[in-house]
Amino acid sequence: MNKITVGIVGAAGLGGIELYKRLIRHPGVEVVFITSETYAGKNISYFLPELIATDDLIFENLNAEKQAGIADAVFLALPDKVSIQYAATFVKDSVVIDLSAAYRLEDTAEFEKWYRYPHTDQASLTDAVYGLSEWNRDAIKTANLIANPGCYPTSVLLPLLPLLKKGLIKNDRPIIVDSKSGVSGMGRKTNSAASYLEIDSNFRAYGVGIHRHSPEISQELNKVGNIPIQSIFTPHLLPLKQGILSTIYLLSDSSADECNAFLTDFYKDERFVKVGGDMLPETGKIVGTNMNWFSVVESAIEGTLVIVSAIDNLIKGASGQALQNFNIRFGFAEETGLV
Amino acid sequence: MNKITVGIVGAAGLGGIELYKRLIRHPGVEVVFITSETYAGKNISYFLPELIATDDLIFENLNAEKQAGIADAVFLALPDKVSIQYAATFVKDSVVIDLSAAYRLEDTAEFEKWYRYPHTDQASLTDAVYGLSEWNRDAIKTANLIANPGCYPTSVLLPLLPLLKKGLIKNDRPIIVDSKSGVSGMGRKTNSAASYLEIDSNFRAYGVGIHRHSPEISQELNKVGNIPIQSIFTPHLLPLKQGILSTIYLLSDSSADECNAFLTDFYKDERFVKVGGDMLPETGKIVGTNMNWFSVVESAIEGTLVIVSAIDNLIKGASGQALQNFNIRFGFAEETGLV
Amino acid sequence: MNKITVGIVGAAGLGGIELYKRLIRHPGVEVVFITSETYAGKNISYFLPELIATDDLIFENLNAEKQAGIADAVFLALPDKVSIQYAATFVKDSVVIDLSAAYRLEDTAEFEKWYRYPHTDQASLTDAVYGLSEWNRDAIKTANLIANPGCYPTSVLLPLLPLLKKGLIKNDRPIIVDSKSGVSGMGRKTNSAASYLEIDSNFRAYGVGIHRHSPEISQELNKVGNIPIQSIFTPHLLPLKQGILSTIYLLSDSSADECNAFLTDFYKDERFVKVGGDMLPETGKIVGTNMNWFSVVESAIEGTLVIVSAIDNLIKGASGQALQNFNIRFGFAEETGLV
Amino acid sequence: MNKITVGIVGAAGLGGIELYKRLIRHPGVEVVFITSETYAGKNISYFLPELIATDDLIFENLNAEKQAGIADAVFLALPDKVSIQYAATFVKDSVVIDLSAAYRLEDTAEFEKWYRYPHTDQASLTDAVYGLSEWNRDAIKTANLIANPGCYPTSVLLPLLPLLKKGLIKNDRPIIVDSKSGVSGMGRKTNSAASYLEIDSNFRAYGVGIHRHSPEISQELNKVGNIPIQSIFTPHLLPLKQGILSTIYLLSDSSADECNAFLTDFYKDERFVKVGGDMLPETGKIVGTNMNWFSVVESAIEGTLVIVSAIDNLIKGASGQALQNFNIRFGFAEETGLV
Repeated sequence: MNKITVGIVGAAGLGGIELYKRLIRHPGVEVVFITSETYAGKNISYFLPELIATDDLIFENLNAEKQAGIADAVFLALPDKVSIQYAATFVKDSVVIDLSAAYRLEDTAEFEKWYRYPHTDQASLTDAVYGLSEWNRDAIKTANLIANPGCYPTSVLLPLLPLLKKGLIKNDRPIIVDSKSGVSGMGRKTNSAASYLEIDSNFRAYGVGIHRHSPEISQELNKVGNIPIQSIFTPHLLPLKQGILSTIYLLSDSSADECNAFLTDFYKDERFVKVGGDMLPETGKIVGTNMNWFSVVESAIEGTLVIVSAIDNLIKGASGQALQNFNIRFGFAEETGLV
Repeated sequence: MNKITVGIVGAAGLGGIELYKRLIRHPGVEVVFITSETYAGKNISYFLPELIATDDLIFENLNAEKQAGIADAVFLALPDKVSIQYAATFVKDSVVIDLSAAYRLEDTAEFEKWYRYPHTDQASLTDAVYGLSEWNRDAIKTANLIANPGCYPTSVLLPLLPLLKKGLIKNDRPIIVDSKSGVSGMGRKTNSAASYLEIDSNFRAYGVGIHRHSPEISQELNKVGNIPIQSIFTPHLLPLKQGILSTIYLLSDSSADECNAFLTDFYKDERFVKVGGDMLPETGKIVGTNMNWFSVVESAIEGTLVIVSAIDNLIKGASGQALQNFNIRFGFAEETGLV
Repeated sequence: MNKITVGIVGAAGLGGIELYKRLIRHPGVEVVFITSETYAGKNISYFLPELIATDDLIFENLNAEKQAGIADAVFLALPDKVSIQYAATFVKDSVVIDLSAAYRLEDTAEFEKWYRYPHTDQASLTDAVYGLSEWNRDAIKTANLIANPGCYPTSVLLPLLPLLKKGLIKNDRPIIVDSKSGVSGMGRKTNSAASYLEIDSNFRAYGVGIHRHSPEISQELNKVGNIPIQSIFTPHLLPLKQGILSTIYLLSDSSADECNAFLTDFYKDERFVKVGGDMLPETGKIVGTNMNWFSVVESAIEGTLVIVSAIDNLIKGASGQALQNFNIRFGFAEETGLV
Repeated sequence: MNKITVGIVGAAGLGGIELYKRLIRHPGVEVVFITSETYAGKNISYFLPELIATDDLIFENLNAEKQAGIADAVFLALPDKVSIQYAATFVKDSVVIDLSAAYRLEDTAEFEKWYRYPHTDQASLTDAVYGLSEWNRDAIKTANLIANPGCYPTSVLLPLLPLLKKGLIKNDRPIIVDSKSGVSGMGRKTNSAASYLEIDSNFRAYGVGIHRHSPEISQELNKVGNIPIQSIFTPHLLPLKQGILSTIYLLSDSSADECNAFLTDFYKDERFVKVGGDMLPETGKIVGTNMNWFSVVESAIEGTLVIVSAIDNLIKGASGQALQNFNIRFGFAEETGLV
């Protein structure tokens, strides 16, 4: 079988590196180019000393005109502003999987309200498919531009969407989403907020009321319910590298057991979703994997349920789901390169 | 001036050690005995290598009959079950400050429901004063048994009580309290759950719907409001040693600014409460201090506010507040030994 | 091709789990049994929530009589005392790869001096091959009992042995080996020394002058040199999970550059050894891999060189090297399951 | 008694903040000015939220001409290059305690070799006293410029100097000093090397053979011995905030017990030195204190001893020792503000 040729634009970021590590293990893939402005000319083994000899590639500068067309699939692991600049060029000849937020919000006005700059690629936006793998599988199969979901939304939507669709969540009050993420969620930054001295042995909330994953969560929740539902999202920064845990509070007339049973059945054929279990989900138990592990639990107040949901923000929340979407799109078994 | 004589029962625990460190700096205090079953015969400098020569004391076995009466004040830093056994003996001759949960819940039935064993010291319970320093100062001044508040409740009650009393919180739905604590909250344990390998680079919820600080929070919230109010409390375990951050979601017709202004004024004379500020509260900024730092923030949904509140669970959440209560009770300036 | 059948005895330990994760990715292997006394009856997905459905096995109790003979290869991931009890039974029918220290020291008297109990399986000891993959490859190819090296010795021997053999190290004084290991080196313990509160934000030496990896290092160093050489080994405990960094001080008439050039050439065909590079070796850069990364550096004093050497103690220092040895023994490409 | 007036130049750095926290607790001190270029105009409670009302000061810009003369003592917590610029101005009217390396090396040529720029204040250098409190107490009492020792050298010199002076160390070979420091040793940096993602779960050596504390250690070691002695110093970066552990290898004809007994006696009246004890020194046990805790241990090779020595790099290794020196210079009890 001919291998699918792949390029990674922005391959030196945290997400790009994780993607590369998995793609070179993928038997049906050949990585043909990787780009990085900062590391152009360097070998990717700079980040991955375990790569010797055959596995390594050299970072090139991004040159969309030249790189478009030489790969069957292109992953964009770029800031949203930069993705918007280049996605249209790549999408002409390649399937594009965009890991940024550029093509997630369908409503340009909403995008501009939260991201505070004009969206200049409405055409691609119209074609883009929201790449929540387990939920949009059919659309992903034929998509030319896949908008890979945000890390926080992934941890929130996979448990909530089936419950909402089934009518198990009441919309009398907002769903409260209290999320906690590891430091890799902010990327490879060098400002004071990213320093060890500010993060180690510290814990804080950030972006309260204004985080850009709020509208992404709302958009997807409101697609499936037959009733509008509000949500409040608060992210926090954990003193650890990888992992997200979201604690979700919702009103329901069903019990936690009923919800877990329904979700277990709903996801019974999914390789990357684990519902319930003997213990509560923990980030450390699924770090490095593409799993979303969640569980519904009774609160002390009747009628309110708590969902605890864990993913690795860099894997299921970014590169892993991107590769899962690639596998769906190109007809590979969904777990190829991911287990 | 004669010094106040003090004993610490259970002085080798995390809370006992923090208390001792502060008491030996207190100019009006002489520590006359410290007890520990595990470390009896050892010098407390085992835990505090910086103590040389003059500062040190030897742990004794607990002997309530003998130790009662030799100190003006006795701190009990014991499991609740053990406190219940000995508090009555000590309270005959000494002011007792109990750091456990033994005397916090006023309703024995509620105590027995959550703690699952009978409360055998109803008499002391009736006399006990809930030691939330800033809130119960007058009662503490004359109390003989001070029930020092739980760590989580302290972080929740100081911001909420004034708002509730003033009528700024609506009771249409439960207040959601999503709390995260450092590892010292579980004390000096040696089980698997306390091991480095289980905690480092990991984050998890625990005791969802069943944590014993739930009824303590509810009890105090319902004392001040003229309307009953429900609350849902979920604790989490952070990969760090000290510090609690509580993220609280509530309904209000007021703005965050109005609430912050009211709280700033309400606490304007308090040495250990900080409201608002340029940045959001962080645990790392107040660790090692007796401060409660909190701030009210707008959520993305009108009518719902978020409060972020930080304390050091071992200081303001335990030993520091215990010493603050001691200072109130014995007429010292409230910050003596604490700054 | 028929798959090689494999059993793991002690599969629930940290090393056993890492081994299992790699074996189930190995295209030429079928894991046929896993044992654990503590977790007998539980599914290994207890430790690996990403395993769903097909990948999982149930822990059995160890039953050497019954389990011997049903696998082509058996990995023993046991305490040394337990390995000595069972290795002889397994080695009759299977190739045994022992991850403990039971068969590393060739001299029983030396074993008994450091381990302080009698070695009761002299017969197997005589047959055992020291499994330092890059160094003993030929002997490993036909071995029936492979004594997988200790984690610290692996990090020390791979850089030192070629230099010693080539005569680039002077024996006028002991080689100083100052090693630092992550917490997983002590296994999954529940004592006070393993607790988060004792390890986080702390650093300490341990076993100074008495650590059992000392004689293992000495034995192997003295095999290759034509002159006897002494070494002093001091281990330390790092506040992190995985990784060893050894800092080695030695006398040499050669320069660091000469040594690095020689080592680079010596190891040029090795997949899992990296010499020198633009930056010094760091544990974090090779964690999760089977690499040994080391570099020779000039000290400030002429004639003394410093070597900095990093491995993942659980991978190259245990399970990874065990699998590498398995691949050598059964004729697989050496990196199968390891990259 | 009139209070001693004090200024801190560079008060917003990690060392400056620790110093300020201790000075405001010092009953004989009034802090009259604090400077910071970055934070000029901000209240120091920005870093210390526990400071409310009375304790706080506003950072000023450095203005040596104006600030010289308004304080009895001035602490310089500056980069060495900046200290060299301003020390001479301040020393005219104030006792200067310099926390940088500017005045530690007595030989300008040696300074310029290691620091790679010309030393332009030879006059002050000649007057400066090396502020190793326990060792140079008499000279410190009358010094006008105190060169506070480096953090690594402090941890090395306090155990070694008495042994060398007594003739208990042989000079046949270099003393090996393998030191490990917490991240605060690099100050409040924002480069990639200071980021959480580079430091957490990672360990590395740095500055091998070229660290600037090497000549400082050598200079002081060679002052006391009647024989020249060489030393090799290798620093490492620990994934923790505060603390240094130095592991020192030396030749001696004495036993570890003899050395510990001698050192215990030698330091018997010192408040901030702890020798030996039931367990080995650990950084976590003395963090936050001004202690140097060390112990001599037998290696596995006769004639070679190992010393393990722990300090808090920010306290005994910087601000604490600076305050100790201040107390010596101004006639306060040495532990004032430090316990």
